[in-house]
Amino acid sequence: MMNTLAKLKEKLREDKVDGFLVTNEINIRYITGFTGSESFLLVTPKHDYLFTDFRYIEQAQQEIPWIRIVERKVSLIETVCGKLKRLHIRKLYVESSHITLNQYNEIKNTVQGIRIVSEQGSIKKFRKRKTKEEIRKIQEAIAIAEKAYHNIKRRIRVGISEKKLADILEFEIRNQGGERSSFEIICAAGSHTSQPHARTTNREIQDKDTLLIDWGAYFQFYNSDLTRVLFIDRMSSKLKEIYQVVLDAQNFAIDCVKPGVMAKDVDSAARNYIEKKGFGKNFGHGLGHGIGLEVHEGPTINRSSKEMLEEGMVFTIEPGIYLPGFGGVRIEDIVLVTQDGCNLLSHLPKDIPEVCI
Amino acid sequence: MMNTLAKLKEKLREDKVDGFLVTNEINIRYITGFTGSESFLLVTPKHDYLFTDFRYIEQAQQEIPWIRIVERKVSLIETVCGKLKRLHIRKLYVESSHITLNQYNEIKNTVQGIRIVSEQGSIKKFRKRKTKEEIRKIQEAIAIAEKAYHNIKRRIRVGISEKKLADILEFEIRNQGGERSSFEIICAAGSHTSQPHARTTNREIQDKDTLLIDWGAYFQFYNSDLTRVLFIDRMSSKLKEIYQVVLDAQNFAIDCVKPGVMAKDVDSAARNYIEKKGFGKNFGHGLGHGIGLEVHEGPTINRSSKEMLEEGMVFTIEPGIYLPGFGGVRIEDIVLVTQDGCNLLSHLPKDIPEVCI
Repeated sequence: MMNTLAKLKEKLREDKVDGFLVTNEINIRYITGFTGSESFLLVTPKHDYLFTDFRYIEQAQQEIPWIRIVERKVSLIETVCGKLKRLHIRKLYVESSHITLNQYNEIKNTVQGIRIVSEQGSIKKFRKRKTKEEIRKIQEAIAIAEKAYHNIKRRIRVGISEKKLADILEFEIRNQGGERSSFEIICAAGSHTSQPHARTTNREIQDKDTLLIDWGAYFQFYNSDLTRVLFIDRMSSKLKEIYQVVLDAQNFAIDCVKPGVMAKDVDSAARNYIEKKGFGKNFGHGLGHGIGLEVHEGPTINRSSKEMLEEGMVFTIEPGIYLPGFGGVRIEDIVLVTQDGCNLLSHLPKDIPEVCI
Repeated sequence: MMNTLAKLKEKLREDKVDGFLVTNEINIRYITGFTGSESFLLVTPKHDYLFTDFRYIEQAQQEIPWIRIVERKVSLIETVCGKLKRLHIRKLYVESSHITLNQYNEIKNTVQGIRIVSEQGSIKKFRKRKTKEEIRKIQEAIAIAEKAYHNIKRRIRVGISEKKLADILEFEIRNQGGERSSFEIICAAGSHTSQPHARTTNREIQDKDTLLIDWGAYFQFYNSDLTRVLFIDRMSSKLKEIYQVVLDAQNFAIDCVKPGVMAKDVDSAARNYIEKKGFGKNFGHGLGHGIGLEVHEGPTINRSSKEMLEEGMVFTIEPGIYLPGFGGVRIEDIVLVTQDGCNLLSHLPKDIPEVCI
């Protein structure tokens, strides 16, 4: 963690910039280890300052004793402006993909003569390549999600609602050591599966339903994200066909993951195959996304991504085919880019569509 | 819901502004009823447009058929810029407390000659005064939270961990019809209670512990937020004293809630009493916050608030006293401002500190 802070300070010295205002709380957590929210961080070549309120003072003192804690009495941004003035900051980096127009204007109008420069690349770039410690936490988040899934599979039966299944899965994730789910669990049955981001409803599972579950576990601030499809009792030949197309597409994508490959080419590996099979129009989302402190983070794995894969990147590969009014199939796993290829970090079976009775 | 949209259109006509870009997804939900995320809304005096992606098209068509759906193929903000150009928008309201510096710059640099004006008051102001339908949903969110609490109280025993209790409470909230908790449940025992926003840990509950639970239920997009303190077996006289001070302070505050009163005076009613009793330094946060679609929204109830109470406002009243290293007490309830006073919407007992055995 300290390593990133040191790199940012180095960057400030090189670029001759006096400070870096970090407003994104996930980035603050990444850089410092502070786990509170509603706080800002100011990095300068010399000292660093966390601006927070009464609620987090004790916690901040325990978690980041090497950073100066500033308790706000007015708004967070006003407190920051006061410090910027006292430190005579002339040139300031801000996270322009996060800072709001109001916050920007407050600094510009309050701190006379300050030059505010958009900086959005550094921290995002650092976060894309995971450390060993981060990979270990993601692996644990995946293992928890997988154990929880294993335990709910035997609870699936005709008559149970999508919501009840999701609730039991949530509880199992916590039982297995997860703090909570990484996101609202998608548990969609029958024709609901045709909506890639279906909301879980009270619809009861029926005989011959397709069941799509998209879930993840949050563990020590890291996330997992998996999707599996199950068929209740018997699978129609149409679904059997699209399941196999999606699975093959996923494998083609996984096979081409290694350092130096362009992210968009991984997307193409899956997409071209799905198109060739005649379902191109039914796969409207990107192939995957980086995962770590956030469920969705860099790298972006879609057809317009300009990123190149590097060792240490961790992302999902989740092709899907959705037939409106009929149903859909998505299969989602997580890979780690290694020195000469990739490791599949998730291990739930998928080669034969699973049938519950 | 349509009512707010009509009011915004009226405002655009009056102010001679061509469009209002709504980027805050909660505001989009409030205005239109669309429940997806990662979407923007453009309101114009004539037509309205929702910019979204593949995942939400089917859902948007079902939820808001009266709004034109624009599927993005490039980034959301680029798609918006294209539409702004085609519609010849010259003057545009943006939510400046929400739009990011990058998004603002993208519009400014792409749509030649456009005048971007900060607008942050209208929707926020509408949302403060709840409709009957909203109040009904909040009441249901409170009822669910209360039933869940009732059910876990008998599960509290020496040896159970903070986290296990929080997990059971989460499950009970869902069992009672809640979709999930409104926020990460705080379940803090012993000296952990001295941190107003303590993280729930694996610490086991011990004999003579103070136990603070801060929880809420999320129901049909509305939230509740309550706090209760329990004493395991026996309460020290020091805690008995601060419990009574907090409870009295809360009652003084509730007693002065009615339309026309300044929010800061409600805060003072509790704060002055706590100060008089010698614990002023130990009550560092504001007295409360509005609640509805968000757990924290307007009105702000603290000493620097400039807001005046109006009929239909719904907010928490949650004084607390925190003694670092020793423990803390907070009592939180929810009130609705009525025509001539207020109704307490939450009903869990609190006049006698409850003791579990």
